[in-house]
This record gives sequence, C-alpha cells and structure tokens, in this order.
Amino acid sequence: MDVRSRLGANVKRLREQLGLSQEQLAFDADMHRTYISGIERGVRNPTVTVLERLAMALKTKTSDLLT
Amino acid sequence: MDVRSRLGANVKRLREQLGLSQEQLAFDADMHRTYISGIERGVRNPTVTVLERLAMALKTKTSDLLT
Repeated sequence: MDVRSRLGANVKRLREQLGLSQEQLAFDADMHRTYISGIERGVRNPTVTVLERLAMALKTKTSDLLT
Repeated sequence: MDVRSRLGANVKRLREQLGLSQEQLAFDADMHRTYISGIERGVRNPTVTVLERLAMALKTKTSDLLT
C-alpha cells in the first residue's frame, strides 16, 4: 500500500471516528471539500504543511496520518 | 517546532546515523543535493511521495520522519 493510499485510509477513518463529514473537515482544515475527497481516495499528493493542518483538524499527530 | 523543522531535524539525524553525506542521500533518494539541504533546513515543503523516497533511502518508516 503506497503512502498516498495509507494517508487516505487514515484520514477517512479518523474523520469518521470524529463523526465529521468531508465538508466539515474541509472547513476545519481550511481546504476545499474536493481536495479532502482526493486525499481520501489517494489521488492527491499533499505537502507536509497540508498534513499538519489535517492532523490538527483531526486532533491527531501528523505522523499518525502516515502509519 | 513546526512540521518542516521536525522533518529537517529527523532527516539530518538519520542521515548522519547512517554516515551518509547530503550528496549520497540525494543520490539514493533520486533528488538534488540542494533539495536535501533545503529539507534539512526546514525551508522546503515536500509532498508525501517525496517523504516516502526519503524514508526508503534512510531505511526508516515514512511516519518516523515527522515525529
């Protein structure tokens, strides 16, 4: 499983655990909803600063998004 | 400490533990030496696929570069 697929699966799992929609997560992380969707599907290649914003919105550590 | 500074410190530490020069790491990860230098100084904002190439060259997990 490549790093983008792992990231996508982690974002989706954590988002659902928090009971957030993609739209709510997008708002909290200051991104567009379609960008969240692309990350979850593993078709985006975000930078580390984007990972950090996602991690804050998902109340987790940046490194946990890639495990 | 922001995510780019953490990444830079981790890359430098792991590279030195392996006894690699920036030039050797750049070769192994198929990047330019000045890009490695920029990552170590925290002035670059690499994508997750770049992190994965770095992690492989540093014989570690991608997530360990961000802890």
